[in-house]
Amino acid sequence: MSMDVDLSTQPTPRIDRLGEEGAQAIHDAAMFIIEEYGIQVNHPEALALLDDAGASVDDDNLVTADRSLVEDAVSGAPSSFTLHARNPDNDIEVGGADPFRAPGYGAPNVRTFEDGRRSSTLDDYETFMKLAQLEGPINSAGYNAVEPTDVPQEVKHVEMVKRSLEFTDLPVMVSSYGADRAATTLDMVGVAVDDPDLSKTYAAGLVNTVPPRTLDEKMTGGLLELARQGQASVVAAFIQAGASGPGTMAGAIAQSNAENLMGITIAQLANPGAPVVYGIPSSNLDMRYGSLSIGSPESALFSCAAGTMGEYYDVPSFSGSSLTDAKTVDYQAGFETALVDLATTLGGVDFMLHAAGILESYTAMSPEKFVLDCELLRFVDRFQEGYTIDEERLALDVVGEIEPQEHFLGEPHTLKFAGEDFLIPDLVDKQSHGDWESDGAKTAFELGHDRVQDHLAAYSKPELDSDLQADLDRLASEQRDAILREI
Amino acid sequence: MSMDVDLSTQPTPRIDRLGEEGAQAIHDAAMFIIEEYGIQVNHPEALALLDDAGASVDDDNLVTADRSLVEDAVSGAPSSFTLHARNPDNDIEVGGADPFRAPGYGAPNVRTFEDGRRSSTLDDYETFMKLAQLEGPINSAGYNAVEPTDVPQEVKHVEMVKRSLEFTDLPVMVSSYGADRAATTLDMVGVAVDDPDLSKTYAAGLVNTVPPRTLDEKMTGGLLELARQGQASVVAAFIQAGASGPGTMAGAIAQSNAENLMGITIAQLANPGAPVVYGIPSSNLDMRYGSLSIGSPESALFSCAAGTMGEYYDVPSFSGSSLTDAKTVDYQAGFETALVDLATTLGGVDFMLHAAGILESYTAMSPEKFVLDCELLRFVDRFQEGYTIDEERLALDVVGEIEPQEHFLGEPHTLKFAGEDFLIPDLVDKQSHGDWESDGAKTAFELGHDRVQDHLAAYSKPELDSDLQADLDRLASEQRDAILREI
Repeated sequence: MSMDVDLSTQPTPRIDRLGEEGAQAIHDAAMFIIEEYGIQVNHPEALALLDDAGASVDDDNLVTADRSLVEDAVSGAPSSFTLHARNPDNDIEVGGADPFRAPGYGAPNVRTFEDGRRSSTLDDYETFMKLAQLEGPINSAGYNAVEPTDVPQEVKHVEMVKRSLEFTDLPVMVSSYGADRAATTLDMVGVAVDDPDLSKTYAAGLVNTVPPRTLDEKMTGGLLELARQGQASVVAAFIQAGASGPGTMAGAIAQSNAENLMGITIAQLANPGAPVVYGIPSSNLDMRYGSLSIGSPESALFSCAAGTMGEYYDVPSFSGSSLTDAKTVDYQAGFETALVDLATTLGGVDFMLHAAGILESYTAMSPEKFVLDCELLRFVDRFQEGYTIDEERLALDVVGEIEPQEHFLGEPHTLKFAGEDFLIPDLVDKQSHGDWESDGAKTAFELGHDRVQDHLAAYSKPELDSDLQADLDRLASEQRDAILREI
Repeated sequence: MSMDVDLSTQPTPRIDRLGEEGAQAIHDAAMFIIEEYGIQVNHPEALALLDDAGASVDDDNLVTADRSLVEDAVSGAPSSFTLHARNPDNDIEVGGADPFRAPGYGAPNVRTFEDGRRSSTLDDYETFMKLAQLEGPINSAGYNAVEPTDVPQEVKHVEMVKRSLEFTDLPVMVSSYGADRAATTLDMVGVAVDDPDLSKTYAAGLVNTVPPRTLDEKMTGGLLELARQGQASVVAAFIQAGASGPGTMAGAIAQSNAENLMGITIAQLANPGAPVVYGIPSSNLDMRYGSLSIGSPESALFSCAAGTMGEYYDVPSFSGSSLTDAKTVDYQAGFETALVDLATTLGGVDFMLHAAGILESYTAMSPEKFVLDCELLRFVDRFQEGYTIDEERLALDVVGEIEPQEHFLGEPHTLKFAGEDFLIPDLVDKQSHGDWESDGAKTAFELGHDRVQDHLAAYSKPELDSDLQADLDRLASEQRDAILREI
């Protein structure tokens, strides 16, 4: 039988909670905030750039500006850019077809299946870099996967970026905490990619605003350094709605937008056309405890808003992804993570931090959750991918051949396509109850533990030219010494 | 500041993986199957109805029919209908704004936090009815929440429906396993709602086809009885893709569609305008183990297909909702359930079975997972609900008042709206790590256990007129005796 139909994978579905009118209202509100109230920018060079461009700066560093200044600057930002890795096979187009996904960011603690919870160490950092290198859904080393507590605070950016570059050959992120740390870590990247002048975009830095309505000295310094070197600034207003912003979705998104646009404007004034990413990683407070709530439906809604507003401004968007407030790797961790992951992916977000490993509202990372989150991301990607409808896959000939009470197992058509249309899960349990019990009745947490052990046993460092490795060692050593001398 | 904007909650986002062209292709494929290959219908009355309407029936009960016969019949089915409860406050419009959500269906086992896994009993059935009555996201008693193994097989439908009617005052489902059981259980419903002739639609029955391409005697008998009494038939081709249908999404959906349309046609021929629901609760096999995989991305895609095809035929749609293959209440259970729940809800499915409690690919129910799934459904509903953008919620006046380095806590605006825009979770942990640890470091499974105990302690039966209760007792007793005499 012939059916005249050939529908390749359907267009990716988008969850858009704002719509055109909503995006326009959020834009107008942010323009009002910038025109009437201003954003405090605590960095002299940024203030000078803004002043030169026609903005007004008052004695408290409050910057107000006409909407045209901001709109013109933002319209000069690229709609996508390639983030290059030291291994060109791992280059990513940010704002392209596939999302950028990096591990969790900034957790001071680690929880493991065997040891429970403790402070993060540099050894943990290495573990997460190894997992990032091995797990397909994670395509960047990120930065600060855990905050190591066993090295001096002043040099940990050196230690981390060095290891990101050694233990993975993925695109990396660098420190954005001040121009110095940005420059230091960018220097290391330049060595590892064998392009000391950074002639291409090799790194991104997360530049958080300080809500309400502030860009602080450190982050703005990092932003300027990144922009001037043509590296990517991920500008993100991380608002805790009800505390550092209004206690409404609309108000928090509007304030986020104003802060982001001021940051992006500064980057574009410093270096027109510099790559930027627009982020709304905001979430709500749980008013009962005053605790941050990131594995929440509101967090998922903020992610969708990031996707829509990024599209509105035609720049790549950023949000957190595998988020949960659960304290351990349990049902809550699974469902909250899935909710935010799906919303972020279907919401069209391009640049995802915290895509694997996060527990307890950003304050812990779990290697087991890392590999389990990657399994979830494989499910999410399979769902998002959809399926093809064409004559061969409609399989009407096969349906006609198989009589009632017969079955399709072993049919050539089944064998040909089942591996294409149906994901074979890599990690979670799909056996019968009996087989699961015989295999030790392991929970997902325990299966994750086994997988982590397997990964660590199988891991080997990606090749790095021995001269470059020596250069990197030497540079890191010099940087470390110079910093420690100054303390 | 005044912004001329008032965007009430944005339109509900829809995930549609088929699109118009895809739906049309699936329809055409199903019409081809019905015109060229036929569906085996093993019920003499149904065959007579089809024959009278102009279909062809061969010696093997294979029914082929012109597409116009099927299209005309299906077009007579209502696009929505009210499912009445014995408490009119709990009536539900199926195909209306809110989804119908019933507990798991058919599990022969129970897993609890304290006791592990064992066979289901009538006592368990009562537990799940109590939980259904108390948990907001579940708005139907469903049927067969667990298959009790401690009563004679022949009378368990009587025991279950009696308890559904006594322990809840929600809309119920009845047995569809043959005309006799459908009639028996509908009689009980008639007594409890004090409307013995069932002048309205008070019950729904799940009518599974037997893929490939079969409607068996029992289910077709149930379908005819439900239709003739004006009660709702949930016609559902539950295909295990690769076994009872093709090993492709497109092929399995096309075959599901053909089977469903034959069932709906029979219902409409038996009683034009009878309420029906269109279901694709299909999923894939895990080819490694030959095991059913329901907590899969493909299961989520089948759910979305149900939503789209229901819309295409303008009838309410059905799929499973809180599905997982996990064996216990762990991370896997959380993320798989969330994936399918979100897809089913955002996919526009109207009628959801298995909306709470299911574990291990339909073969176990857990009371703890039941209450945790309800927490997840509250998150999903909050996400789906979106938020309002208007002048008051944009809160520009408040943003202007709060200076940089200040905060919004305690602001009248924050206090007024935080409870509106931000869900306060009812069950899962949102405390700090320290407080969680002081409270016993409980996993979600354990928190669910506490909640179940609280519910069972707080539960009381919803009022039922004592005469009706006496009538129900008498009828059930007569039915039970009559059935057991015949064994």
